Amino acid sequence: MRIPKLYVENAEKHEGRKVVIENNGKVIRFLDKDEEYSGNGKVLYQVIYDDFDKYVLMGEVTKDMLIEYEVGGVKQLTYIKKGTRLLEIPAEGYKVYPIVDFGCRILEGHRLAALQSRKGDIRFVNTPVNGIVVFLKEVPAKRENYVFYILPEKEIKFEEELYNN
Amino acid sequence: MRIPKLYVENAEKHEGRKVVIENNGKVIRFLDKDEEYSGNGKVLYQVIYDDFDKYVLMGEVTKDMLIEYEVGGVKQLTYIKKGTRLLEIPAEGYKVYPIVDFGCRILEGHRLAALQSRKGDIRFVNTPVNGIVVFLKEVPAKRENYVFYILPEKEIKFEEELYNN
Repeated sequence: MRIPKLYVENAEKHEGRKVVIENNGKVIRFLDKDEEYSGNGKVLYQVIYDDFDKYVLMGEVTKDMLIEYEVGGVKQLTYIKKGTRLLEIPAEGYKVYPIVDFGCRILEGHRLAALQSRKGDIRFVNTPVNGIVVFLKEVPAKRENYVFYILPEKEIKFEEELYNN
Repeated sequence: MRIPKLYVENAEKHEGRKVVIENNGKVIRFLDKDEEYSGNGKVLYQVIYDDFDKYVLMGEVTKDMLIEYEVGGVKQLTYIKKGTRLLEIPAEGYKVYPIVDFGCRILEGHRLAALQSRKGDIRFVNTPVNGIVVFLKEVPAKRENYVFYILPEKEIKFEEELYNN
């Protein structure tokens, strides 16, 4: 599979490519390599896709981000605003075989990964919610360890918020 | 699930909303209800999402189209150019239970639907390619009948093209 491109607002280190978001996402404008921009839109800079999790803190996206995924003549863009909450689902085992990947829309109960124990038993990690997989992180650890970042269809509420409403 | 919005170039019947594609997809601009546009970009008009298959002929997309899918603060856009080839996979049976839906990225061998026979036996329809499900059509018929429209990661080649290359 191709690796998606990730653009982030106010990225510290950034490569050449830029994209501008105007009017709260109504206009999305990719800039040429040396193109200057003088409007009042938000400028997002390309960063390394594998750094996705640096822009997520306690399950909340900390900066506006745009994911660009292009295959053949088809471009898929996902614009995630700062403050959006993601669900992080870990999959750890002796062997872990991810079943879904970036961009997969998943429905409640779908399998995310197969876990194999040392004895060879297979169990599955399922998703508790409908949503979209926006990132799959491989965590360096003794046992195989992945984290699925899922954008849920229904916004996540924390417990104290539920009590207040 | 929410229903995605579909925008199509030169749509005959169209509703109010419009989106403009400039510079071969480098700028995507959603217009306000009464906003006029005078540039030289392609104007796509909103049509009914369920009419998706009217813009596909012999597996080829006949007009530029944009699919907009918005959940919470997140907007997902898929821009499909005219001439893009889609794979149509039918699922027919006494009972058909679709497993994936619009927007699901699928990897070779994933299950698309479960088919139940009159005797209760279950079989699965799998995808032969990696790709994205862009539309799911329910075909009115005596038995339950669905068609999955899949955008493959690798471009589809017809046989005569393979011989010529």
